[in-house]
Amino acid sequence: MTAGEFDLIARIRARCATRPDVVLGIGDDAALLAPPPGMQLAVAMDTLNAGVHFPHETLPADIGWKALAVNLSDLAAMGAQPAWCTLSLSLLQADAAWIDGFLDGFLALAGAHHVALVGGDTTRGPLSVCVTAHGFVEAGTALRRCGAHIGDDVWVSGTLGDAAGALAQLQAGNAVDPALRERLDRPIPRIELGRALRGIATACIDVSDGLLADLGHICVASGVGAEVELGSLPASAASRSAFDEESRRMLQATGGDDYELCFTAPESMRSEVELAARESGIEVARIGRIVAGAGVVAHGEHGESWTPPRKGYAHFA
Amino acid sequence: MTAGEFDLIARIRARCATRPDVVLGIGDDAALLAPPPGMQLAVAMDTLNAGVHFPHETLPADIGWKALAVNLSDLAAMGAQPAWCTLSLSLLQADAAWIDGFLDGFLALAGAHHVALVGGDTTRGPLSVCVTAHGFVEAGTALRRCGAHIGDDVWVSGTLGDAAGALAQLQAGNAVDPALRERLDRPIPRIELGRALRGIATACIDVSDGLLADLGHICVASGVGAEVELGSLPASAASRSAFDEESRRMLQATGGDDYELCFTAPESMRSEVELAARESGIEVARIGRIVAGAGVVAHGEHGESWTPPRKGYAHFA
Repeated sequence: MTAGEFDLIARIRARCATRPDVVLGIGDDAALLAPPPGMQLAVAMDTLNAGVHFPHETLPADIGWKALAVNLSDLAAMGAQPAWCTLSLSLLQADAAWIDGFLDGFLALAGAHHVALVGGDTTRGPLSVCVTAHGFVEAGTALRRCGAHIGDDVWVSGTLGDAAGALAQLQAGNAVDPALRERLDRPIPRIELGRALRGIATACIDVSDGLLADLGHICVASGVGAEVELGSLPASAASRSAFDEESRRMLQATGGDDYELCFTAPESMRSEVELAARESGIEVARIGRIVAGAGVVAHGEHGESWTPPRKGYAHFA
Repeated sequence: MTAGEFDLIARIRARCATRPDVVLGIGDDAALLAPPPGMQLAVAMDTLNAGVHFPHETLPADIGWKALAVNLSDLAAMGAQPAWCTLSLSLLQADAAWIDGFLDGFLALAGAHHVALVGGDTTRGPLSVCVTAHGFVEAGTALRRCGAHIGDDVWVSGTLGDAAGALAQLQAGNAVDPALRERLDRPIPRIELGRALRGIATACIDVSDGLLADLGHICVASGVGAEVELGSLPASAASRSAFDEESRRMLQATGGDDYELCFTAPESMRSEVELAARESGIEVARIGRIVAGAGVVAHGEHGESWTPPRKGYAHFA
């Protein structure tokens, strides 16, 4: 079933939840929002293009989930509480069943974090989903990339390399492990952990391009280097059973699409970090240390330095 | 010359102006912004796709200008003062000269309205430009679509049908009048007029899909009908010389891409409307009246009713 542009918008609008700080949602030239006094506004914007950011055969519901998740993950990395989002959807044709599926995934994640979809547009074009996410963070408490200090521990949440593992299996034409596929299609933004790390972490980023690449961004912004112990990178049981150690190490260190938080904190804060993680319901692993200098050096189990063929995903590389 | 993704971002970042309410701009997981106390936030998001929203051969600088202009035009229609924007750019390849040209146009318009580009992303994909624009409006003063009353005058700013005229010449393979082409490629968001109409206009929309279609949105939102006199629709000299009356009437009533403001105001406010227009440096024309009922009826010069073959542009129509 195909639908006109305004039918599509009506279909989206009918399913949107609201919140008291949304003065005017979908349906006018712009949304009107009431930011809470004294809070800073954190704004992230990320686009997913078919065939680049997700395989063409991805289910509409998974595309919807992921398009919002990658943006909420950016807010998580700032320690912000998500509030509102806008959505721009480019579609080759207006397919009502596709939209309904897309909204199932998008709104399930939005609902879980009380995020209101307040506007955007639908246009004709190659399948592309652009989301802008807005969140709040108390002034002066946002987690940034630039605060890592020499001697800080480097931490990461959850497990690494699972999404990249699913993609590798898919690209090889092999059966895809369902647990890995779930990590590729339904990343979980670590909102609670990001909030809990305010006042504890000195720097934070979400791992979207690959651990070494993203930790490298912290290093550049902070004017420091980092050493990572590959043996301490957390791996899921699914990843351990699907890949040999060398392949898995590569996926964990450089794979990308993890949407875990990589952050730094003083050694004196280890128990606070662990408490924050416990209260957020996610495990964290200490994987290295901030050092003087520049760049990220990875070490193997026996102390040998390890250079990956590539550090992470880059468009146009 | 091609560039990597992070080179592109650095290239954009180097040219971005800032403002005191931008706590953190491009370069972290999200921007951090300080909304002014007591103001509502107006948020608009619009995407332009190559071949759909602009001809493929459009100059990069014109694409940049227009991508921001269509979003600022939405803020203008709310009576909001623009402040910040984010940009998501999908490109088939990272071409540094293309980006520089794009930024020339984008940042020229941003600078004219003191809009800071604070974040976004660059990805690989078919050429597509998505912008989210943020503005401020004093609580309770935003211009909405839903306030038109029976008996109100209907007004429009500037001239209508110029951009559509350029597109018609282009699609016919004819020489394109430069004045019309300018209106297609470099629409002017009517920010000052939108601000000046607060407290005067009862409803407002920007004309992007075609006058009759967009006035129809005001009618639906306000639960009223409208009568428009085709003879009073403002036309540019370029449009008068390029098209016969019947073609021009069609372009003016249904052409779209005008980015003028269509608004309603009580008859008692005519002099206030004219003063607001004069102070904003743009002419306005009174083109009709809000009536009981539903839908928009257009009348010719001799009172005959006129039904256009289509009312305006709709994706997926």
